Amino acid sequence: MTEETWTQPITKIEPNKVMVRGYRIDELMGRVPFSHVVYLVLKGELPTEAQGRVMDAMLVSSVDHGATPPSVLAARTVASGGAPLTTGIAGGIMAINRHHGGAIEGCMVVLHQAVERKRERAQDALTAAQELVAEYRAAKQRIPGYGHRVHTDDPRTQRLFAIAEEEGVAGEYIEMAGALRQAMKESLGRDLPMNVDGAIAAVLCELDFPLEMGNGLFAIARTVGLTAHVFDEITAQRPMRRISPTAQGYDGPAERKL
Amino acid sequence: MTEETWTQPITKIEPNKVMVRGYRIDELMGRVPFSHVVYLVLKGELPTEAQGRVMDAMLVSSVDHGATPPSVLAARTVASGGAPLTTGIAGGIMAINRHHGGAIEGCMVVLHQAVERKRERAQDALTAAQELVAEYRAAKQRIPGYGHRVHTDDPRTQRLFAIAEEEGVAGEYIEMAGALRQAMKESLGRDLPMNVDGAIAAVLCELDFPLEMGNGLFAIARTVGLTAHVFDEITAQRPMRRISPTAQGYDGPAERKL
Amino acid sequence: MTEETWTQPITKIEPNKVMVRGYRIDELMGRVPFSHVVYLVLKGELPTEAQGRVMDAMLVSSVDHGATPPSVLAARTVASGGAPLTTGIAGGIMAINRHHGGAIEGCMVVLHQAVERKRERAQDALTAAQELVAEYRAAKQRIPGYGHRVHTDDPRTQRLFAIAEEEGVAGEYIEMAGALRQAMKESLGRDLPMNVDGAIAAVLCELDFPLEMGNGLFAIARTVGLTAHVFDEITAQRPMRRISPTAQGYDGPAERKL
Amino acid sequence: MTEETWTQPITKIEPNKVMVRGYRIDELMGRVPFSHVVYLVLKGELPTEAQGRVMDAMLVSSVDHGATPPSVLAARTVASGGAPLTTGIAGGIMAINRHHGGAIEGCMVVLHQAVERKRERAQDALTAAQELVAEYRAAKQRIPGYGHRVHTDDPRTQRLFAIAEEEGVAGEYIEMAGALRQAMKESLGRDLPMNVDGAIAAVLCELDFPLEMGNGLFAIARTVGLTAHVFDEITAQRPMRRISPTAQGYDGPAERKL
Repeated sequence: MTEETWTQPITKIEPNKVMVRGYRIDELMGRVPFSHVVYLVLKGELPTEAQGRVMDAMLVSSVDHGATPPSVLAARTVASGGAPLTTGIAGGIMAINRHHGGAIEGCMVVLHQAVERKRERAQDALTAAQELVAEYRAAKQRIPGYGHRVHTDDPRTQRLFAIAEEEGVAGEYIEMAGALRQAMKESLGRDLPMNVDGAIAAVLCELDFPLEMGNGLFAIARTVGLTAHVFDEITAQRPMRRISPTAQGYDGPAERKL
Repeated sequence: MTEETWTQPITKIEPNKVMVRGYRIDELMGRVPFSHVVYLVLKGELPTEAQGRVMDAMLVSSVDHGATPPSVLAARTVASGGAPLTTGIAGGIMAINRHHGGAIEGCMVVLHQAVERKRERAQDALTAAQELVAEYRAAKQRIPGYGHRVHTDDPRTQRLFAIAEEEGVAGEYIEMAGALRQAMKESLGRDLPMNVDGAIAAVLCELDFPLEMGNGLFAIARTVGLTAHVFDEITAQRPMRRISPTAQGYDGPAERKL
Repeated sequence: MTEETWTQPITKIEPNKVMVRGYRIDELMGRVPFSHVVYLVLKGELPTEAQGRVMDAMLVSSVDHGATPPSVLAARTVASGGAPLTTGIAGGIMAINRHHGGAIEGCMVVLHQAVERKRERAQDALTAAQELVAEYRAAKQRIPGYGHRVHTDDPRTQRLFAIAEEEGVAGEYIEMAGALRQAMKESLGRDLPMNVDGAIAAVLCELDFPLEMGNGLFAIARTVGLTAHVFDEITAQRPMRRISPTAQGYDGPAERKL
Repeated sequence: MTEETWTQPITKIEPNKVMVRGYRIDELMGRVPFSHVVYLVLKGELPTEAQGRVMDAMLVSSVDHGATPPSVLAARTVASGGAPLTTGIAGGIMAINRHHGGAIEGCMVVLHQAVERKRERAQDALTAAQELVAEYRAAKQRIPGYGHRVHTDDPRTQRLFAIAEEEGVAGEYIEMAGALRQAMKESLGRDLPMNVDGAIAAVLCELDFPLEMGNGLFAIARTVGLTAHVFDEITAQRPMRRISPTAQGYDGPAERKL
């Protein structure tokens, strides 16, 4: 059986030369920040300074969220059986899916629907949002990206939107994110602030990322926290311990300022 | 059975407040670059500007190396069976272990041995390196971190060391990396330049990272490339195709300058 | 935060007593064959002797299919990076999904549709099959479970159906499997014999397994082959080798008779 | 780059012919029980009837142990994030490693040491065991395979050894397992019955399995339980729930007899 030759558009390797999306990696090193290179690898082009700064903040926003998310509990549990560091990290990443981090993609779908409706019907954002919220309610479907089991007003959302505004990246998707919140408040009688998944969704729409990249971006950022958690599990915790998802606390440094 | 309370030192969650290693994540966002936050999450403290720049370059150096490494082939193969994006990424990360990326930890071990010997015996770097190389040869053990199956002079190594020099981060571990190369050249009669795994090992030693973090840092950086590869596999390739590790090419943008 | 108590219906543990689906495991051992216990664990009840024999044959049919399926290539590739045995096996299982092994569930869906149609419309099997095939063609959808990239007449299918007949387990789903083949032959002008995924689908329908168990049963059987492949990779192959999906051969015992 | 041809000794595929370790899989189906085929795939030869019955009992002994082991908690946690069935199963298998199931391999090492010592020094089993236990105590190392966090007298151990005796498979490794228990009782003043990991270790030694197969056999058996647990998590539990490792119960059928 002969083998088919196949191609990929990401990286070209030649002796003594590594080119990522066309750029020599040794030229990128030290000149283009890691977060901008993440953008380059995922999208195929370097971001503008403004896009790069928003990308950076988005990645920082998702590095970790303590030890209660399924990804961390899965990663630590795998490690507690004796698996090596990378197997533990992988166990965590596998838990990122439809229900965990998946609100990013889900919310991107809704934002695209709403903005398309607005454009096609030449509506304002709030009218399009009200119609869509009504349709979702009628179909008994939730709009993902709003509300959080811990935070009533997610600090990451506010900050991410503020940076997007500062950098001129905020456009009709972030506007629509606010319109949907308003429409839901009118319809449900309850104000559900956007959570960080929703905020990332809106920003990824502004940056024209494909839907499937929602989980991808989250996985890249969260791998950082997972690595620290698995390292802690391997070096500081007892093997085969029962890892409670609730009876847990924090023993790191007290709050400090930059 | 009652549950033991346990603690972790990474992230504290309170309503409307996420604190990573003591810093509010919304304060970090937009002010501290992602690569510095990676350093913070892994080490517990923010890097200096100099350390942060070296960290950034190290992460960039390892984002991707084309489609031949086992991690990419595993990730793409998992995805070709129909698994979701994050399961594919996880399949790739699991392939990062002793033989793939493991030279980082292996080389860190040797560098620590050599520098300790130098200190304890009050030797110069070359003498310590010569003795250690002789011992490794006698024990028929390889010194990891030198030589590469594609690159005779890894461009990432040169660049990483140059940045470490510029930033004043280069110390006795990077000096020892050079001494070991010299000692191996004398002993083997062959000049094996340090590969990027070795260069990262030397820099991680300078930054005082624990050995086990070698694979961790590599996993974090490589997750970026894996995400792009799995996305390509899912969106642009045929399901269940036979993925050749050799009959493959690159069809992305031609070489371009920053 | 208090924890919710949760329950599962699979196994009860008491000191010196392990009860699987209500049966003491030490009573099952040596008296009930492993394959029947698999049935018990998955379905909640022990099979009849007839059902148990069909279950056994189904598991045997899927233990391995050489080194070309994605699951084996993924498992070996993960292991070649240095991962431990179980991580390699897991890498293989993750590749079993929609496209690899997924035809079982896909074919179960079609068989249920066809048999329901037959019942509701009081048709004979062939008429129901002809109508469904016409609808699938019109919608340009493939009917999964027929045809194979290597086998023109899958020996496992014939044998599995023969055993199901012998044991009186063959009913209207296996009849419908044949009717669909006949209807496709008439419609496409090409005889596509059922593959082993399709045969397992038909038998799982006869045994009243839920759809989602298609991949589960396949994963259980294939874990056996994956374990042997990963063991071979770790003990007999070179680390970090390039694992060709095509340039490969067999060097085990020659064909032999029971 | 040309590809090296490689070989594996497990399965040969020809059109319309699948041969596992030399036997046609359609000939095995319905004639050789699944558990014997597991033995064939792993060892390369069919077991005798006696060996096959012991193998069967060993596989049954390990199908499940409730919802507290790390493998089940990891599998369910991965699934609760929304991952598909096979990704959840894989998450569980990854947790089987040095600390979880690893006592099998650890105990096999000790049994081999003890039996070799007995043979080389022409000692009786108890003398060899006493010496080894003294050496392990002096080195402050535990002998794996004895004691259990729930069972004071593991019912699976007794039953497995009884079947091995009945079938004439019990030899000097099972004898040594008893001698080590006796020696530990004398040395520690506490009787630690062998757990099921230890019992499987002794039987795998009798059947001449390689050490690395300890985790492999356990993974094969436990995949059955993991499949049922992940299916339950996906179909009967709430997504993203907090899965307590302790506040859990059983709601399946009450104890019943065969």
